Amino acid sequence: MINEKIKQGIKKYGEELTAIRRKLHSEPELSWEEYETTKFVSDYLTQLGIEHRKTEPTGVIANIKGGKPGKTVALRADMDALPVEELNTELPYASKEKGKMHACGHDAHTAMLLIAAKVLNEQKEDIPGNVRLIFQPAEESVTGAKAMVEQGAVEGVDNVFGIHIWSQMPTNRVSCNPGPTFASADIFTVTFKGRGGHGAMPHDTIDAAVIASSFVMNVQSVVSRTINPLQPAVVTVGKMVVGTRFNVIAENAVIEGTVRCFDGATRDHIEKQLQIYAENVANVYGATAKVDYIRGSQAVINDEDSAKLVQQVAADAFGVESLYDEKPTMGGEDFSFYLDEVPGSFALVGSGNPEKDTEWAHHHGKFNVDEDALVTGSELYAQYAWVYLNK
Amino acid sequence: MINEKIKQGIKKYGEELTAIRRKLHSEPELSWEEYETTKFVSDYLTQLGIEHRKTEPTGVIANIKGGKPGKTVALRADMDALPVEELNTELPYASKEKGKMHACGHDAHTAMLLIAAKVLNEQKEDIPGNVRLIFQPAEESVTGAKAMVEQGAVEGVDNVFGIHIWSQMPTNRVSCNPGPTFASADIFTVTFKGRGGHGAMPHDTIDAAVIASSFVMNVQSVVSRTINPLQPAVVTVGKMVVGTRFNVIAENAVIEGTVRCFDGATRDHIEKQLQIYAENVANVYGATAKVDYIRGSQAVINDEDSAKLVQQVAADAFGVESLYDEKPTMGGEDFSFYLDEVPGSFALVGSGNPEKDTEWAHHHGKFNVDEDALVTGSELYAQYAWVYLNK
Amino acid sequence: MINEKIKQGIKKYGEELTAIRRKLHSEPELSWEEYETTKFVSDYLTQLGIEHRKTEPTGVIANIKGGKPGKTVALRADMDALPVEELNTELPYASKEKGKMHACGHDAHTAMLLIAAKVLNEQKEDIPGNVRLIFQPAEESVTGAKAMVEQGAVEGVDNVFGIHIWSQMPTNRVSCNPGPTFASADIFTVTFKGRGGHGAMPHDTIDAAVIASSFVMNVQSVVSRTINPLQPAVVTVGKMVVGTRFNVIAENAVIEGTVRCFDGATRDHIEKQLQIYAENVANVYGATAKVDYIRGSQAVINDEDSAKLVQQVAADAFGVESLYDEKPTMGGEDFSFYLDEVPGSFALVGSGNPEKDTEWAHHHGKFNVDEDALVTGSELYAQYAWVYLNK
Amino acid sequence: MINEKIKQGIKKYGEELTAIRRKLHSEPELSWEEYETTKFVSDYLTQLGIEHRKTEPTGVIANIKGGKPGKTVALRADMDALPVEELNTELPYASKEKGKMHACGHDAHTAMLLIAAKVLNEQKEDIPGNVRLIFQPAEESVTGAKAMVEQGAVEGVDNVFGIHIWSQMPTNRVSCNPGPTFASADIFTVTFKGRGGHGAMPHDTIDAAVIASSFVMNVQSVVSRTINPLQPAVVTVGKMVVGTRFNVIAENAVIEGTVRCFDGATRDHIEKQLQIYAENVANVYGATAKVDYIRGSQAVINDEDSAKLVQQVAADAFGVESLYDEKPTMGGEDFSFYLDEVPGSFALVGSGNPEKDTEWAHHHGKFNVDEDALVTGSELYAQYAWVYLNK
Repeated sequence: MINEKIKQGIKKYGEELTAIRRKLHSEPELSWEEYETTKFVSDYLTQLGIEHRKTEPTGVIANIKGGKPGKTVALRADMDALPVEELNTELPYASKEKGKMHACGHDAHTAMLLIAAKVLNEQKEDIPGNVRLIFQPAEESVTGAKAMVEQGAVEGVDNVFGIHIWSQMPTNRVSCNPGPTFASADIFTVTFKGRGGHGAMPHDTIDAAVIASSFVMNVQSVVSRTINPLQPAVVTVGKMVVGTRFNVIAENAVIEGTVRCFDGATRDHIEKQLQIYAENVANVYGATAKVDYIRGSQAVINDEDSAKLVQQVAADAFGVESLYDEKPTMGGEDFSFYLDEVPGSFALVGSGNPEKDTEWAHHHGKFNVDEDALVTGSELYAQYAWVYLNK
Repeated sequence: MINEKIKQGIKKYGEELTAIRRKLHSEPELSWEEYETTKFVSDYLTQLGIEHRKTEPTGVIANIKGGKPGKTVALRADMDALPVEELNTELPYASKEKGKMHACGHDAHTAMLLIAAKVLNEQKEDIPGNVRLIFQPAEESVTGAKAMVEQGAVEGVDNVFGIHIWSQMPTNRVSCNPGPTFASADIFTVTFKGRGGHGAMPHDTIDAAVIASSFVMNVQSVVSRTINPLQPAVVTVGKMVVGTRFNVIAENAVIEGTVRCFDGATRDHIEKQLQIYAENVANVYGATAKVDYIRGSQAVINDEDSAKLVQQVAADAFGVESLYDEKPTMGGEDFSFYLDEVPGSFALVGSGNPEKDTEWAHHHGKFNVDEDALVTGSELYAQYAWVYLNK
Repeated sequence: MINEKIKQGIKKYGEELTAIRRKLHSEPELSWEEYETTKFVSDYLTQLGIEHRKTEPTGVIANIKGGKPGKTVALRADMDALPVEELNTELPYASKEKGKMHACGHDAHTAMLLIAAKVLNEQKEDIPGNVRLIFQPAEESVTGAKAMVEQGAVEGVDNVFGIHIWSQMPTNRVSCNPGPTFASADIFTVTFKGRGGHGAMPHDTIDAAVIASSFVMNVQSVVSRTINPLQPAVVTVGKMVVGTRFNVIAENAVIEGTVRCFDGATRDHIEKQLQIYAENVANVYGATAKVDYIRGSQAVINDEDSAKLVQQVAADAFGVESLYDEKPTMGGEDFSFYLDEVPGSFALVGSGNPEKDTEWAHHHGKFNVDEDALVTGSELYAQYAWVYLNK
Repeated sequence: MINEKIKQGIKKYGEELTAIRRKLHSEPELSWEEYETTKFVSDYLTQLGIEHRKTEPTGVIANIKGGKPGKTVALRADMDALPVEELNTELPYASKEKGKMHACGHDAHTAMLLIAAKVLNEQKEDIPGNVRLIFQPAEESVTGAKAMVEQGAVEGVDNVFGIHIWSQMPTNRVSCNPGPTFASADIFTVTFKGRGGHGAMPHDTIDAAVIASSFVMNVQSVVSRTINPLQPAVVTVGKMVVGTRFNVIAENAVIEGTVRCFDGATRDHIEKQLQIYAENVANVYGATAKVDYIRGSQAVINDEDSAKLVQQVAADAFGVESLYDEKPTMGGEDFSFYLDEVPGSFALVGSGNPEKDTEWAHHHGKFNVDEDALVTGSELYAQYAWVYLNK
C-alpha cells in the first residue's frame, strides 16, 4: 500500500530535514508574528515549484496537483513558537530570541511537512488527486486554524491529516485512535478592580492582591468539588499581574488562564462557575470582577475511518510494533477547526528519548525533539497522502 | 518670636509658590530619576544667589549663611513622584507623564522649601547662624535620605526639620507630637520557583500561581494572629508577577511588599515570619522560596524639645487653634535617617478640604493638595528656622 | 436458562419483601451496631430452616445446600445504616432513630437477599451445588467485608455476587460491566496541634482553626493540580472538629476524610501528599500535624466472565432492554475484599424514579428507594445463583 | 490613708485565703452553673454574719453596713470557671471536674473578696458608709454582670471597684490606669448550609467544609486589611463544627468566635464585615450563610478619679514600686456593665512568677496563680473600700 519511493525520498533528505528544523528552532516567532517563517516556507516552495499563496497576516496554503484525477487530501503543520525562555542554551541551534522558544515542536512539524512536500512533488505524476499543504500560524493562541479555514484552507478538501511530535511517547512510535484525542481549549481573563492606596493604610483601600489570591485558592475547588471526577477537566491560572509597586496597595489584578475538557456540558459549567466565583469573591471584599471567557478550539475527535487508516499506514511503513496507544490529552489543538469542516484525524509521533534528554514536557524551557523522529513524521505525512488518494 | 517680615515675604510670593508646585506636579519624576527637578531647583537657587551643590545622581544641598554667627538648622523637602496613574485628568497641571504622578505631595514640599529659601535669603543678614536646605530625591523608595546623609547633608547641622503635606488633616492645621510619628518601612520580595509546563498537564508541574496565592492568603494571619493587637503592624503585598502566559503553568512568582511597625521586636518577628511562611508554603507544593528582606527607614521618633518648638512656632504663626493632634501613621518616612544623626522633628501640615476634593488618600490617583496649605507649609519651614536660630 | 419458579416465587413474596425493607428502614443501626438487624435475619433464617451462624460481633453467614452436588456461589447483602438525619419524616416507616438512617439502601439489600433465600430454599432440591448467604455488617465503615472473610464467609466459595440498589439509574435497569466498578475507599484523619489560649490574645497562641482551614483550602489542589486529569480521584474532607469554645483559641483540630481512586499509583501519591500538605501547613504556623491513613477497600474490579453472566441473567429475566451501561463510580464498596479471594461481580439495580422522588443521592437525608426495584433485585440474586450453578 | 488594722487582718487570714482559693480551684463550675460556689459563698457570709441574698440562678449580693453614715462602695469578684482541660494534674488541688478548670483566676478573686469581707466586717464600726459585695456568676459568657445589675447589684452604689489577677504581670505589682483597660467582647456564630451527599460524589453536593475553611481564611483579612492598624481589633474563630462523618460530604458548618475592640465604629464595622464575608463566601459555592452577632460587654473604660485613687491606695499599701503600667488588653470584662451605671475602676494584680511557672496565659490548661498575690489582692479590695469611704 505504501510507496517505497516516498520512503527512500524522505530518507535521502534526512539531513536537510534536520537542518530546516534547526534553522526554524533558532529563529522562533510568536503567534501571528511568523513573518520570517512564512517567508522561509514560501521561498522553499517557490524553489520546489509548488504553487502556493500566503495568507493574512502569516501562513501559507499550497497545492500539489497530481498527474491523475482524484480526491484532495490536506496535510497540516503549524509554525508558531511560545513565549518561553529556552534553557537548552548549549545547543548550537538554541533560540536566538530571548524569551521565545519552539518549546512545542512546531519547528519540527513545519520541517517535516516541507520535506514531505518535496518528496510528494517529485512523485506528483503518479498521484491520483491533489495534496493540499497547510502551513498554519498561531496554533498556540488557538486562533490560527480558524483563520486558515476562513481563508480557504480546506476548500475542496476531502480529508485532513495532522501530526504532533510527542515527547511523552518513545521516539518513532505512532498513536492515532478514533474518538477524543485533544481537549477543548478555552481562554479566560478575570479582572478585579479594588481601590488602590498607600501600602501602610490598608483600611482606606480594597486590596486586589488578596482578592486575586483568594480567587485562585477558591477556584481550585471548581475541579476538585464541582465536576464529576470521571469527567476530565482542567482549570489553570497561568498568569497573574497584580498591582504596580511594593508599597502601593494594588487597585487592579488581572488573571489569565485556560480551561480544558472533553464535553460541552462541562465546558458550560466551568464557564459559569468562573463567573460566579469571580463575582462573589469580589463581593466579599467590596470589589468588582469582570470575566472574559473566549472559547478556543473544540475537542479534537478523530474520525474513525481516518484514524484506522493512519494506523494501517504506520503499520505498513514502520512495522506494527510502531503502533502506540496514547491516552487522550487535556492539551488543546485547534486542528479541531479543520475537523469541523472535513473528516480526518490527528496523529502523535513519539520523540521522547531518555538518552537524549528529550522527554521534557511540551512548553517547558528544556523541551527538545529527538531528531530521529523527524524522518518518521515526514514520511507519515507523505505516505498518508499517498495511501488515502490511492484508496 | 516669629518674624513678621518672613510672614509677609511668603504671602507676597504665594502665586509663585503655587505656580512652582503646579509646574513640578505636571512633570513628575520617579525615585532616582529626578534629573529635571534637580535642575529646576538648582537653577532657581542660582537665580537667588544661594550657594548649593548637586548630589549624585540627583538632589541638591544648599546653604544660606546668616549675617551673624550661630547654629545650623536644616530644612528638608523631598522631590520624587510615584508610579501611579493620575486620575485628575481635568486639571490644567495634571501629570504629563503617563503612569507617573506626584500622588504624595512632594511637589508641594519642594515648592514650599524653595519659597522659604527665597524669603530667608532676603533676610539673611539678620539670621544668627545658617540654614541648610536639603532637596532630597527618592523618598518613596526610602533610599534617598540615607544617600543624602552619606553625601554630607547634615554635616555641621544642629537640628533638622521636615514637613509633610497631609490630606487626612484639615487644611492649614499643623501637627507635630513628640515621639512616634511614622512607622518603620521595610521592603520584602518573595520569589517562588515551581516547575513550569503545559497548562493542560498540571500533574507534570508545580504551579507557582497556586503557591503565590496560598502565601498571600496565609500571610494575612501574620498580622491577624501572630502580633499583639495593641502593637500596630502592617504587612502589605503590593505587587505580584506570576507566570508568563494563560496556557503555560507558571514556573515563577515574584511577590513584593512592605512591612510597617513601630518597634524593633515586631519588625524582627515579621521578618522571621515571612521567611517561615514562604518556605513552608513552598514545601507544601514541593517548590522553593527565596525571601529578600530589606530594612528601609526606621520609625520617625520626634525629639521632644524640637517637636514642642514646632508647636510653639505654629501657635505663634497661625494661632493656637491651628494645632492638631494627629495620631502616628503607619506610613514610612526616610526622614528617620536624618534623626539618626541629629535631633529634630517632622511636622504634618493639613491639606484636606472636602470642598476641593483634596481628602483622597496619599498614593491614590485622585490625590491632590489644597493649595491654600502651601503658604502655611512654606512659612512653617522659614519661621522654624528663624525661631530655632534665635533661641 | 433462568428458573421460572424462582421468578414466580419472588413475585409471590413481593409484599413481604417490601414489609421487611420498611421494618429495617425504620430501625437503622450504625456500622458494627447491627445487633437487632442480625437477630432479625437470624430469626428469619431459623424460621425458614436455613442453616446459619452469627459472626462477631454482628453479621450472619448461611448455607443453602442444594439437592445435587455442585459448586458454591455466594450472595452478599450489607446491613448497616448511616449517621445521617432522615428528612423523609412523613414516611410511615421513617427512621425512628434520630441521626441514623438507611440512606444508602442496605435495608433493601438485606430484604432482597432474605426473600431470595426463601425462594431458593424452596427450590433447593433442584439446585446443583450450594448457595452461601452473606449478611454483612459495617460496609459503610469499609471494615465489614474484611471481617466476614476472616470469619470464613467465602471458604469453599467458587464465585461471589453482590448487588447495590442505585438511585442514579432508572428503576429496574441493571448494570454490571467487566472491569472497574467502584473506586478504592480510604480513610484519613489529620490532627493538628497548635497552642490554645485566650480568644483575645492570638499572639500568645497557635490557632488550630486557621491551620485546619488553610489545610482544607490547600488540599483542594491535590486533585486540581497534582493528579493527571484523566485519572479520576477524589479527596473529601467530610468532618472537621476544631476547638472547644467561641472565645478560646483552638489548640486542636481534627479533620476526617476519604480518598477515592482506581489505581495504586494514584492511591500512593495521594496518601503521600496528605502527609506533605499537613506537615508543611502545620510548619507555616509552628504547629504539628499527625496523619493517619487507613487503607479501606480496594477498587471493585468485576471479573469479566462473571459480569457477562450477570448481564445474560438480567437480559433473560427482565428483557434485554433492562440492561444499562452505568459508568464506574467513585463510591467505594468493600465487596472488593470478597473479590480478592474469589472471582465474581457486583451489579447495580436502578431505583431512581422522578415520580416517586427517589433520585436523591445516596447518603442524603432525602434518599429513598423506589420499592418496585426490590422484586427485581431479589430475583437477580436468586436467578444468578441458579444460572451460575447450572452452568 | 490606708488602714493598718486591715493590713494586719488580711495577713492573719492568709492561710485561710489560700485554702479557700484551692478548694474553689478543685471544684470549678461553668458559667451559670456556679451552684456549689454560690452556696459556699453564702454559707461563708452567713457564718460571718454578713447580710446577703442569692441572685438567680447563681450569684450573691451582700452588704456590710458601716457604723457611720456615708457613701456606698461596691467590690466585685467573679466566680465561674472555663471548659478547659486542666494540665496541672500534679497539683493537690487540681480540678476534679474533667474538662472544667479555673483557668482565669476567678477562684482567686472570690477567695480574695471573701477574706476582704471578713476583715472589713471586723472593722465595720469604724466604716463611714457601706460596702457592697458582688459575687458575680458567668463572667466568661459575658452575661453575668448584666444580670447582677438587673438584680440590683449597684442600686445605691456610688463607686465600684474590681480586680483581676494577672499572670502577665509580676506577682504583687498593681496596674490601674485611667481610660481603656479591657476591650468590648462580642460573640458571633456563622452557620453555613450547603448540600450534603456521598463523599465520593462532590459534584452532587455543596461542600460545607470547603466553604467554612474559605471563610476562615478570608476573614483574617478583616483585621489585616480593613481596620486601621492603629485601632486594636481581634476577630477569633474559636470553634468549628463541620459535617458528621469522614465519608459524607458536610451539609452544615457552624463557626463560633469572638470580636474585640475599643471603639464603637470598629465594632459596627466588624459586625457588618462578618455578614458580608459569610454571605458572599457562601454565594461563591451556592450555599447559604446565617450570621448571629451578639454584643457582649462594652470596653472597660476606667473613670479617671477612681483609677488614680486605686494607684494612691496601692502606693500607700504596697509601696510606690508596686505600681505597674500595664497596657490595655483585648480581653473582655463584663465589669463594663457596672461602669455603665456608676463610676469606678478595674485593677490588675500581678501573679506571674517564672520560678513558680505561673506566667502561662489566661485560659490555658497550665494557667496557675502565684498564691503570694492573694494577700495583695485581698488587701487592695479592702483598703480601696476603706480609703474611698474615708475620702
